[in-house]
Amino acid sequence: MPVNIGLLGLGTVGGGTVNVLQRNADEITRRAGCEIVVTHASARNIQKQRICNTDTIQLSENPLEVVNNPDVAIIVELIGGDSLSKDLVLNAIANGKHIVTANKALIAKHGNEIFKAAQKQGVMVAFEAAVAGGIPIIKAIREGLAGNRIEWLAGIINGTGNFILTEMRDKGRDFSDVLAQAQRLGYAEADPTFDIEGIDAAHKLTILASIAFGIPLQFEKVFTEGITQITQEDVEFASELGYNIKHLGIARNTDKGVELRVHPTLIPKTQLLANVNGVMNAVLVQADAVGQTLYYGAGAGSEATASAVVADLLDVVRAMSADHKNRVPYLAFQSNALSDMPVLSASEMQTAYYLRMQVEDKVGVLSAISHILGHQEISIEALIQKEPKENETLVNLIIVTQKVLESNMLTALEEIEALSSIHGKVTYIRLEHL
Amino acid sequence: MPVNIGLLGLGTVGGGTVNVLQRNADEITRRAGCEIVVTHASARNIQKQRICNTDTIQLSENPLEVVNNPDVAIIVELIGGDSLSKDLVLNAIANGKHIVTANKALIAKHGNEIFKAAQKQGVMVAFEAAVAGGIPIIKAIREGLAGNRIEWLAGIINGTGNFILTEMRDKGRDFSDVLAQAQRLGYAEADPTFDIEGIDAAHKLTILASIAFGIPLQFEKVFTEGITQITQEDVEFASELGYNIKHLGIARNTDKGVELRVHPTLIPKTQLLANVNGVMNAVLVQADAVGQTLYYGAGAGSEATASAVVADLLDVVRAMSADHKNRVPYLAFQSNALSDMPVLSASEMQTAYYLRMQVEDKVGVLSAISHILGHQEISIEALIQKEPKENETLVNLIIVTQKVLESNMLTALEEIEALSSIHGKVTYIRLEHL
Repeated sequence: MPVNIGLLGLGTVGGGTVNVLQRNADEITRRAGCEIVVTHASARNIQKQRICNTDTIQLSENPLEVVNNPDVAIIVELIGGDSLSKDLVLNAIANGKHIVTANKALIAKHGNEIFKAAQKQGVMVAFEAAVAGGIPIIKAIREGLAGNRIEWLAGIINGTGNFILTEMRDKGRDFSDVLAQAQRLGYAEADPTFDIEGIDAAHKLTILASIAFGIPLQFEKVFTEGITQITQEDVEFASELGYNIKHLGIARNTDKGVELRVHPTLIPKTQLLANVNGVMNAVLVQADAVGQTLYYGAGAGSEATASAVVADLLDVVRAMSADHKNRVPYLAFQSNALSDMPVLSASEMQTAYYLRMQVEDKVGVLSAISHILGHQEISIEALIQKEPKENETLVNLIIVTQKVLESNMLTALEEIEALSSIHGKVTYIRLEHL
Repeated sequence: MPVNIGLLGLGTVGGGTVNVLQRNADEITRRAGCEIVVTHASARNIQKQRICNTDTIQLSENPLEVVNNPDVAIIVELIGGDSLSKDLVLNAIANGKHIVTANKALIAKHGNEIFKAAQKQGVMVAFEAAVAGGIPIIKAIREGLAGNRIEWLAGIINGTGNFILTEMRDKGRDFSDVLAQAQRLGYAEADPTFDIEGIDAAHKLTILASIAFGIPLQFEKVFTEGITQITQEDVEFASELGYNIKHLGIARNTDKGVELRVHPTLIPKTQLLANVNGVMNAVLVQADAVGQTLYYGAGAGSEATASAVVADLLDVVRAMSADHKNRVPYLAFQSNALSDMPVLSASEMQTAYYLRMQVEDKVGVLSAISHILGHQEISIEALIQKEPKENETLVNLIIVTQKVLESNMLTALEEIEALSSIHGKVTYIRLEHL
């Protein structure tokens, strides 16, 4: 007997989901053992031209009609945002329907509440498509690495940001220039804030950290820094030192608590992660038994995201008849076994640093800087002092430090900036060896 | 209530499995919702010193005692080989026990028979550890990409072979020299045939192809070529042309049937796969909806392999209470829905080629070779003719062709070798752009 799906949203991902389910219907049925059919869907304007064929789908402009339809067993939420989508999902759960969603903001911000409601109703909520598009990273961490204690993970989980940084490096172009191009190509939204300020990546990191460490979703505690301050100059100096700059989401399980941070990061060029270019995504996971594993693929796009949605549908269809307690838990760990490990504040985080500053080209400057760093227990790993340009007395001084407590670095930076031979602010970018 | 596990084999992987289950017992219980405990185990000599603590395990030198023990719900087979292990697994299945195994030879050669018996008994057989060690590649293809039609996959799935090729490239060393080192380091067995002749990779490719395309296991139809013929000279010429040589397992779904082949392959250096070095494994998958995804990690080792075994244990424990028809099928597709697509013979395969030959340095040679290639519809993509060494009249001629039918290439090679200006055999290595 076919399983009936109700789709909320018929845009890029919704249309892709319909296309994949229709085109691969045979293969999917051979895998699932039953047909999976979109029977109902809602869209804001059902007259609009679509990328998919909706002839066999009952369309409605009222999503509640889909959510309340007794013929529908699983609701696929592809509206986005975290207000209307939240109401609809909670409504569907109350109606005893299982949920599949690609909505990272919804899960990162309201997942705890949604899972609680779902647990009460004994329904599943699957969200593979919410992180890294078509890469089955949720499944890999939640099930594939289930025997491990996960130590840390680091991911390129925003394709727009990675496209911008890749173009800046490969073509020597400026941030704003590449951003404008990304918008023309449709990679970046008209309002690109979520991508370039790291909010989208923070949503995804929140989810990855929860399933990796077994902690509740805590989006508000993610330290988030965007890529808008990255200059062509820093990209070049980083390269000279053997690093690429990537916008990473990093979650680390330390003795003192969990680090959750999204920021531009220098990583050695020899790392696979440093060679993940353009709009591609990848997540590197360090776990105690398996060591490092890496997962790479398209982080966005109509059918890449639909691939994850359909995989979730197969999982949900298979587990529908199972007792709820035998299903894979929402956040990988049993709901009553989540840990209350603290999330560290920014000042408690530890990382190495790349520093660039404009200094007067005279004796004693380097010694003063070294003294300040030494006093904060910051060791220097590498240092480049550039020749002054013609008619200039200021030179670029670049320092790479070893791992240091963030609060010590902030103190040192304040003291360095107060030196009379230092002009302007010190540029600092975090650096990880992974 | 704890689930009791019976372990056959307490060597590298068996010991690792005990260690991981014991060390991560808390995390595993938090994930699974119940304890997973090794209560019984067999080993050839139970007095032997072990890498794991066996104090709480009832040991026996007779594996049948474990297989027949009514207290054991799941048998983990880690003996290796495909004779005794097959008997024990079939015996355990007949006793209604679920199976987890890391044994690629067993699954590749006897999987069809084993799954048939298991299907009849309604028990699970899980084998994530059989391919690419700790990388959850079986799960990714079988479940994570379940919405896709998989077009092809290409993998570095033998760590020993990859270690040898990496050392040859990076250190300019000879094959036999590096092999001896690999044996000293414990990467290669005393009899390294399975690794260097591609048999181990062919076992794994057989399994990957089945779950990717939904075809029965057909190990005997895999075209298999080892790396023993790769010379330092070819590694260097390949590099000069922009390629690394990797020992790949390739499975391709074509209109005419399935290509299954293991052979040394030139791939462009810019590919992520070309930068998977040392003993690491990686599998690149091309699927219609998601595009390319790549999975990277340790392909062998005590705890890396144990990671996959334990992940399988969690899956099996969760699905134990489910109706058999709702479980993930053994080979990703329902047992009654496997396809009878033919596996192509070697002569029907299509690939590009790297050719190296010793030619007399005189007019007309190149034209004769071009004529032969052209007659077989083989286009030349690149060509290097080396200067003759001092006091030598023979030069190395290297040709990279475009994609060609293997049978045409073999005809062309025969004709080229018959030319009087060509000395010796033509060295040929396949080349893929992926």
